[in-house]
Amino acid sequence: MIDAYRGSAAPTSGGSGAPDALPDSLPAAPLPTVRPSVALLTDRYELTMLQAALADGTAHRHCVFEVFTRRLPAGRRYGVLAGTGRVLEALPHFRFRDAELDYLERTGVVDDRTLDFLRGYRFTGTILGYAEGEIFFPGSPVLQVEGTFAEAVLLETLVLSILNYDSAVASAASRMTSAAVDRPCLEMGSRRAHEQAAVAAARAAVVGGFAGSSNLEAGLRYGIDTIGTAAHAFTLLHDDEPSAFASQVASLGPGTTLLVDTYDVRRGVEHAVAAAGTGLGAVRLDSGDLGGLAVEVRRQLDDLGATGTKIVVTSDLDEHAIAGLAAMPVDVYGVGTSLVTGSGAPTCGMVYKLVARADSSGVLQPVAKASANKHSHGGRKAAARRYDADGRAVEEVVVGGPDDRVVAWAPGQAVDEAAGDGVPADPDGERGDLRPLLVPLVVDGAVDSRWVGAYGVQNAARHHLQARAELPRGARRLSVGDPAIPTVDLTLG
Amino acid sequence: MIDAYRGSAAPTSGGSGAPDALPDSLPAAPLPTVRPSVALLTDRYELTMLQAALADGTAHRHCVFEVFTRRLPAGRRYGVLAGTGRVLEALPHFRFRDAELDYLERTGVVDDRTLDFLRGYRFTGTILGYAEGEIFFPGSPVLQVEGTFAEAVLLETLVLSILNYDSAVASAASRMTSAAVDRPCLEMGSRRAHEQAAVAAARAAVVGGFAGSSNLEAGLRYGIDTIGTAAHAFTLLHDDEPSAFASQVASLGPGTTLLVDTYDVRRGVEHAVAAAGTGLGAVRLDSGDLGGLAVEVRRQLDDLGATGTKIVVTSDLDEHAIAGLAAMPVDVYGVGTSLVTGSGAPTCGMVYKLVARADSSGVLQPVAKASANKHSHGGRKAAARRYDADGRAVEEVVVGGPDDRVVAWAPGQAVDEAAGDGVPADPDGERGDLRPLLVPLVVDGAVDSRWVGAYGVQNAARHHLQARAELPRGARRLSVGDPAIPTVDLTLG
Repeated sequence: MIDAYRGSAAPTSGGSGAPDALPDSLPAAPLPTVRPSVALLTDRYELTMLQAALADGTAHRHCVFEVFTRRLPAGRRYGVLAGTGRVLEALPHFRFRDAELDYLERTGVVDDRTLDFLRGYRFTGTILGYAEGEIFFPGSPVLQVEGTFAEAVLLETLVLSILNYDSAVASAASRMTSAAVDRPCLEMGSRRAHEQAAVAAARAAVVGGFAGSSNLEAGLRYGIDTIGTAAHAFTLLHDDEPSAFASQVASLGPGTTLLVDTYDVRRGVEHAVAAAGTGLGAVRLDSGDLGGLAVEVRRQLDDLGATGTKIVVTSDLDEHAIAGLAAMPVDVYGVGTSLVTGSGAPTCGMVYKLVARADSSGVLQPVAKASANKHSHGGRKAAARRYDADGRAVEEVVVGGPDDRVVAWAPGQAVDEAAGDGVPADPDGERGDLRPLLVPLVVDGAVDSRWVGAYGVQNAARHHLQARAELPRGARRLSVGDPAIPTVDLTLG
Repeated sequence: MIDAYRGSAAPTSGGSGAPDALPDSLPAAPLPTVRPSVALLTDRYELTMLQAALADGTAHRHCVFEVFTRRLPAGRRYGVLAGTGRVLEALPHFRFRDAELDYLERTGVVDDRTLDFLRGYRFTGTILGYAEGEIFFPGSPVLQVEGTFAEAVLLETLVLSILNYDSAVASAASRMTSAAVDRPCLEMGSRRAHEQAAVAAARAAVVGGFAGSSNLEAGLRYGIDTIGTAAHAFTLLHDDEPSAFASQVASLGPGTTLLVDTYDVRRGVEHAVAAAGTGLGAVRLDSGDLGGLAVEVRRQLDDLGATGTKIVVTSDLDEHAIAGLAAMPVDVYGVGTSLVTGSGAPTCGMVYKLVARADSSGVLQPVAKASANKHSHGGRKAAARRYDADGRAVEEVVVGGPDDRVVAWAPGQAVDEAAGDGVPADPDGERGDLRPLLVPLVVDGAVDSRWVGAYGVQNAARHHLQARAELPRGARRLSVGDPAIPTVDLTLG
């Protein structure tokens, strides 16, 4: 025993921080970690606005809200929209049931009339948006939510939470997969993100081109391929490295990936090939100078006859580190922290703005905060990407203004019926071909199931690769720059 | 109609990105957004390691894992531990039931023996840790998980996800509340974080000293005070600002907070006092030069007789902006993006390392990756904070080494029985008083309910304020610097 630890005179009034005994008034059992309703994943002011609007009658005014971002993270060339499928999956769970209503009543958040409205709430409006996986730029109207003020305003917080996080991750992922060229990138960042955000991050990584994830829940929910074999703890658990490797190969087969840097990499590689033979699937390097080590390990593997054994690197990679390893004999990149935190831009800055609402006569009028910048013109927007003769994107075209003059874009309507009159025409076609960007996601409250689940993720990943391939070549540079194409706002004054 | 929008020659093969019709093989109904089990919020390699260890018998070796961080974010003086209560809340839900087991079997992640083990899994070990809200430094063993390898290794990903995110937010929150001195800080960042992370962020903000949150789910789950009244959309919904304000005051009372910067702040303040009278609760400024505006608005409010009306500011604040407003007539700070993204450090870099495990004779042996730095000495650690005669913290003392020589810290054991022999003694007491930092959280699988739910959050917030008050004064400076106190590692070689 040491006197130093007796510490009877510990000076803090808080001591160890241990709380007093649990008051009898509190339940002893912990709360569930998740609850089926997502309706309270919401800022309080959405509900207090609803209360006041129900009282004065404006709650039932027809409204259009749009989601967009005013700028990309500093120096980024493009953003990648992700999370749309998750918004649609959440929508049917946005319900106020007894647990939510009891809480709101008990704490006096809203009045009885509002509680009655919430009890019957379901979203019956229409949502258009960019396809998940689509590239976006400043001012791109990536989501349009149309319905009564009451129905549409309640979704603000949840929609933004999902799109801001998922798009931040997908945008980082796309830079990484772009830097990796043809080498697969694997998502391994679950431990560096909130435990549910980690699932969304795995999904968004795949939208951005990743080949798989370590996250099992993402595998279950979205059909994402999961990967991973062993950590340093597994080697340390055993009496020595050869016995750890022998155990892993016996259980997982010689095609497994052995982590060779617990003690000494050179001896680790020796032990690995000794345990698995020359058919060893891969070795993983998780520390040190990855490029230099990869060269040495590749030579050693080849000398040992393990010419087909791959090299996986996984230590604090980001898009710049990946690009820096392009000339090195690396086969697979595992990315964690920088991916799930958006590689320096952990949220997208998307906003959910009221852009049009019915006046007292029921006519939809453009509205906007007076101080908003040029991307916040009022009015519902149409959006399209313009291409040159070679099929390269040249500009993002956004058109807004009074609703009856600009756009009458009905869900499912054909492209050539989608634009209203009044927009500056292009009679000579000299501005190039346009690809319209807004597609129907929810029509009169009905979610289009093609966008959700595993199928939605596959489609989003495929669409992202196509849309990215159409960008100007400079778009894929990692250096600081301007958006890859300008956003041209043709909004009527 | 404009030709430009006809776009029949849209060059992308992907077109709008709309997927094909849903294959019949896929379910039409979206998945639930949350599932009751948290067991798959886990990296795949935890389960494959388990499989191999079950096969070779090492799965049942007694192990100690520790959570610590090797460094603080660049320039930070201290970190704040948060999420401990959430780890304990999640523990009883870490169960493998049919949905999880079916997935693992169908996708071949693990073999039948492992599935059998998982079916019966529950954590029966012991967890010690720093009290939630405690200050930590590099090398502080903030959590110790002790049990068989099989039981303890499975928790790695979930534990790290929770502690890394929650502590990142609490660490940022503490800097903000420190900069705000006696003015309340309110959390409003839900829309800039994953929707479930947002709830954790609200909770962690309160641990770091915030007075409340806009997040309703955090209110329900953790008894956190919720705040918020209206957004710009509410003003824009109405025909003009006076009618919007009149509606809000009629519904929410004159004590409400009116958002006055939708059109023109000066006229907004006029309209606000006209609507609510001089008893108006507060006005909110969400754009522009907040300091200059606050001076003007304060003068205007006072001139109008609304001397008790408070000023809330909410536009892209961080700890530096808060500090910069210290001399301005601001009453409340609302903080969003920078808080929920950890103010530049969106994750903590905590790791979960095997530090000791039984050998084949059952004797616990220290283990460590060879390349680990000095904070990764093997062996279970004891930790205490040392204080000077004035009650100021002077150093973080960490002691590790062979288990039988250093520490025999049994949960619930008194402080003066907590240290083993062999540690350098302090016979003259010249090193000052020590406050032990590790407290029991889970004993033989039983969660101490005092750490969870609303009660746990209250205790954590109280404890944080006490622990922060004991730091050297320099600890609260926002400028770049070293950790406020050094970590002294007395680990035996």
